[in-house]
Amino acid sequence: MITLYDLVFQDDRRPSPFCWRAKYALSHKGLKWVEEPMGFTEKQKIAFAGSQTVPVIKDGAKSVKDSWAIALHLDQAHPDKPLFESEAARILARFVGNWVDTAVHVAVFPLIVGDLYDRVRPVDQAYFRESRGPRLGTTDFSAFQAKAREKGLAAFQATLEPARRLLKEQLFLAGGRPGYPDYALAGAFLWARITSPVVLLETDDPVHAWRERMLDLFDGMGRRAKAA
Amino acid sequence: MITLYDLVFQDDRRPSPFCWRAKYALSHKGLKWVEEPMGFTEKQKIAFAGSQTVPVIKDGAKSVKDSWAIALHLDQAHPDKPLFESEAARILARFVGNWVDTAVHVAVFPLIVGDLYDRVRPVDQAYFRESRGPRLGTTDFSAFQAKAREKGLAAFQATLEPARRLLKEQLFLAGGRPGYPDYALAGAFLWARITSPVVLLETDDPVHAWRERMLDLFDGMGRRAKAA
Repeated sequence: MITLYDLVFQDDRRPSPFCWRAKYALSHKGLKWVEEPMGFTEKQKIAFAGSQTVPVIKDGAKSVKDSWAIALHLDQAHPDKPLFESEAARILARFVGNWVDTAVHVAVFPLIVGDLYDRVRPVDQAYFRESRGPRLGTTDFSAFQAKAREKGLAAFQATLEPARRLLKEQLFLAGGRPGYPDYALAGAFLWARITSPVVLLETDDPVHAWRERMLDLFDGMGRRAKAA
Repeated sequence: MITLYDLVFQDDRRPSPFCWRAKYALSHKGLKWVEEPMGFTEKQKIAFAGSQTVPVIKDGAKSVKDSWAIALHLDQAHPDKPLFESEAARILARFVGNWVDTAVHVAVFPLIVGDLYDRVRPVDQAYFRESRGPRLGTTDFSAFQAKAREKGLAAFQATLEPARRLLKEQLFLAGGRPGYPDYALAGAFLWARITSPVVLLETDDPVHAWRERMLDLFDGMGRRAKAA
């Protein structure tokens, strides 16, 4: 039995982009799991794994922290339906994940930070304010977000260009079928979808059509998640 | 016999990052080639290939334009020592190349544009000014470069983060041995090295150590190229 510790916002919303990578990885492999919701101020729930952040999984007796380590663990412990069929596939997933972490997330965050704050559980808002405020140089997240959106949407869309060019040539970042690179980028869009009404993509953007395909995967797992 | 049409600057310098991809691809496959230098204002030399830009190759009776099409052609026409051993390897190369084109080159160009202009062949300077000026909103490339460097080096180094994280885990972007993803990024650094004395990387950056390995490849092909 696999338990996934998953970040929870108000109304049982589950926006963590890294937890979404774990959910897609589990789904890809046809594995079942149960979710244990955890708010920002409930880190004692994952102390057993030596982690300060989710996702964490308990897979039988074994605990694994960090979305990438979870993906590698799943392929090792459950060899069927591999996430990574070759070294090149693993490196592609890692590079795309690195790019999402350091370019896409960085471009999305200012566009949704006010909405994130508004949807954090009230008991977690002080934590959010004190951890994110110093990073942004303000705790007026709503004003920060409004200003970021003025000029930020075009910059965000430009950031996606490496993926956009690939998606003009193939259905998924992993090739003809979805794979971990797709799950990594999909997590960024679900983070926004679940917490913010902001419109990130034009409908004629190839990334938009890809996102629709991703929302449909695994019986509409992403589409069914409670959105903003 | 393979002929590579290669962009030429003053003093026979060969800075084109896309031509470097072709040179590394040819070297990877152990193929010999002869180079035909072409200045910005000598596009009639590659008109036979229906191209406005280099690299172009003539491989026997066949002409191929565009560095990516050249890489695919080389694997098809010369199957030994493949550049792409699997679909995933090809996609990794394509995605990294897309990222270099749309993020790394975009971050490097403002940092070297004054030096590029100074090293273009005098006969090509008007072309450079008229094609690049409107894009930058100025033809004072030296002043533009100076201003870009004031704040641009940290931003450029941040852009490299997806590659840096991978290079903390493995010797080359392609894995344990160099491959096309490495050649794509190496081209960006050779473009700068050959035209500009700007110092782009700190010596303790994992990307710096990787760049040294790349300069050593194929009997120091990159290191031996005439630098600024």
